[in-house]
Amino acid sequence: MALFVQKYGGSSVADAECMRRVAKRIYDTQQAGNQVVVVVSAMGDTTDDLIALAKQVNPEPNEREMDSLMATGEMASSAILTMALHAIGAKAISMTGHQAGIRVDGTHLKAKIQKIDPKRIRRHLDQGCVVVVAGFQGMNPSEDVATLGRGGSDTTAVALAAALKADRCQILKDVDGVFTANPRVVPSARKLDEIAYEEMLELASAGSEVLQSRAVEYAKNYGVVLEVLSSFEVKPGTLVREEDEEMEQMIIRGIAADKNQAKATLLGVPDTPGVAARIFKSLAAANINVDMIVQNVSAAGVTDVSFTVAKDDIAKTRRVIEPLVKAVKAAGLNFDGDIAKVSIVGVGMKSHSGVAYKMFEVLAENRINIEMISTSEIKISVAIRAKEADQAVRSLHAAFGMAKAPARKAAKKRK
Amino acid sequence: MALFVQKYGGSSVADAECMRRVAKRIYDTQQAGNQVVVVVSAMGDTTDDLIALAKQVNPEPNEREMDSLMATGEMASSAILTMALHAIGAKAISMTGHQAGIRVDGTHLKAKIQKIDPKRIRRHLDQGCVVVVAGFQGMNPSEDVATLGRGGSDTTAVALAAALKADRCQILKDVDGVFTANPRVVPSARKLDEIAYEEMLELASAGSEVLQSRAVEYAKNYGVVLEVLSSFEVKPGTLVREEDEEMEQMIIRGIAADKNQAKATLLGVPDTPGVAARIFKSLAAANINVDMIVQNVSAAGVTDVSFTVAKDDIAKTRRVIEPLVKAVKAAGLNFDGDIAKVSIVGVGMKSHSGVAYKMFEVLAENRINIEMISTSEIKISVAIRAKEADQAVRSLHAAFGMAKAPARKAAKKRK
Repeated sequence: MALFVQKYGGSSVADAECMRRVAKRIYDTQQAGNQVVVVVSAMGDTTDDLIALAKQVNPEPNEREMDSLMATGEMASSAILTMALHAIGAKAISMTGHQAGIRVDGTHLKAKIQKIDPKRIRRHLDQGCVVVVAGFQGMNPSEDVATLGRGGSDTTAVALAAALKADRCQILKDVDGVFTANPRVVPSARKLDEIAYEEMLELASAGSEVLQSRAVEYAKNYGVVLEVLSSFEVKPGTLVREEDEEMEQMIIRGIAADKNQAKATLLGVPDTPGVAARIFKSLAAANINVDMIVQNVSAAGVTDVSFTVAKDDIAKTRRVIEPLVKAVKAAGLNFDGDIAKVSIVGVGMKSHSGVAYKMFEVLAENRINIEMISTSEIKISVAIRAKEADQAVRSLHAAFGMAKAPARKAAKKRK
Repeated sequence: MALFVQKYGGSSVADAECMRRVAKRIYDTQQAGNQVVVVVSAMGDTTDDLIALAKQVNPEPNEREMDSLMATGEMASSAILTMALHAIGAKAISMTGHQAGIRVDGTHLKAKIQKIDPKRIRRHLDQGCVVVVAGFQGMNPSEDVATLGRGGSDTTAVALAAALKADRCQILKDVDGVFTANPRVVPSARKLDEIAYEEMLELASAGSEVLQSRAVEYAKNYGVVLEVLSSFEVKPGTLVREEDEEMEQMIIRGIAADKNQAKATLLGVPDTPGVAARIFKSLAAANINVDMIVQNVSAAGVTDVSFTVAKDDIAKTRRVIEPLVKAVKAAGLNFDGDIAKVSIVGVGMKSHSGVAYKMFEVLAENRINIEMISTSEIKISVAIRAKEADQAVRSLHAAFGMAKAPARKAAKKRK
């Protein structure tokens, strides 16, 4: 008997009809001879509605109270889904994060899971129940509810899978899996059968919204095999797992574009030691994530320092940097919200040279100007004009031959 | 420093504007030098909406899951109200029933409070916080949430007042207090300054909807002084307390009409011992509350047995009684849904004779036929035609001179 953890997001349980469809899917999984633990998000727009209501009574709601409020969304949907399971004859029980034994640290709105005691879940699994756990939440040391932040239900699912030593953690979504590129941009994009944890992590930080980095990191650390699959159709999705020889041999596994980027440039900065440190220390202190950084040293002893931040952070960045313009004797500061970051990701890069060269060449052939570059061992990102992003993704997808599945080095033993 | 427990119902916290108004009322109470514990119901129609959603996925939802679902309504409203308090500068913290230390028995949908450990509430009161508790719920021995049933938030408030030895438990409503009769029916109905627990209990079971019997019983048992008052205007309401010499001397304190009654009559029952017992034992076993019972012995050795039940219970009563018609050799069974129960209540009855006679005379003068009668030490109820109920209430209210406040025996020392 295998143990599956299945996670359903808010759009998969948006109304009664969705609940019934999801219940059937879960029951089928159990009837096929498996134990099933389900993690469920709040129904549809519930969380957004609760946040809007909170802001109506208090523009800056207290974080503990926000957590108490938002957590009710997942509690309600876990109870409703359990009722839907009962309606079709399944044995099932709902649990809050607390009842499921999920203990988190004290940081409200972005708590971290510290420990899971799955005793109660196990007892009910052993009695033949489907256990439906409210995602996104746990109990903190003060006996208050705290939520896990964006993508928190994915993290709940992975953490439960780790604690229960589940055979697989399935993240059911409104997409069929992880694709080589966004199918809405690249019609020939191909669903991947498998992807390595590291690649998935790079794609997530490069703008792919399929999975949150945190859940993937957790899965990687605990060796949980993740599967991203469709909540609407029953067919295999994409396995996210440790890279090995059996995995498809692809130099580039995926291409992602992130249009939520803005470039800030500090102009005419005197080229003296410590200036960059000063700027980025201030940004870090203000909790602003800086992604790419470029500094061009000029002959005249002054330099331009450019970096990218999330578009939402432009105002905050301006507040932090403007006082520094004078302090570091820079000539000025400007922002450019019209850029996009395009990234190619693949573990195959480690053993293949010339990947960066090929990327730059393809972009040049398409008359796309590269404004910034940043690389990791398995990723190359470039900042380009936002309006050229789709064209860049399509050209790269074609040039790297990603529409066609490559041969495998070793015979495939898919679980 | 006095300690107040204030309970606000769903219509008092229906939206953001209501929340802000209630928050101000609470803060004013605290700023006047009091400690305040607030018990809050779910916002507006939330509970009904949740029940409707549950029925969409399962016509007969599991009781534990219903409790988990419904309890989220009060959790959410306690968090929102706390945020509204923060917005106007109050120190405040929300608590679920569990966090407030409320332990209940294991009966879902109608759990009873078994124990309250107010340690955490006290700690926050001592820090100057308003403590906002989610009503209607507690944690049961299986560590599941269970709800207290209809009027449960009133019970939560009274129980907390008892556990905290509060100076007063205020139930804030959309009415100004307890009236001598329903002001919509009797324009001259007068708000009572005070009413005895026993009178309030009788009125509640006679159809007055101001307070639930359970909360009043709890208050009586623990000597909690209750006050029913307006949530919209700041003015004294009605105190519900132990009767004493200082209380207004009224023979009849209140009149109530209950139109949610139906009469069942078992016709031509052989007048042999044990028949009545058999009928009412079956009804009790089916959890049907029988109110008034009349049995007329006839000369022919057969009798008609009539009793009243809630209108909602007609179908269930039919299912229970129909098999008995044959078994007890009765001639038939009929139902009459067009009756109303009109009751007059007052502790003064104990020491005044002729109250029943006067009631019957007033009704006779108004050509209102009495179909059934039942009495307690401080209450007389009659079943009459439903359409005559309002006329009966108005006539009795006038005949007993209830519109005018009576003199008091002793000087009033109102707290």
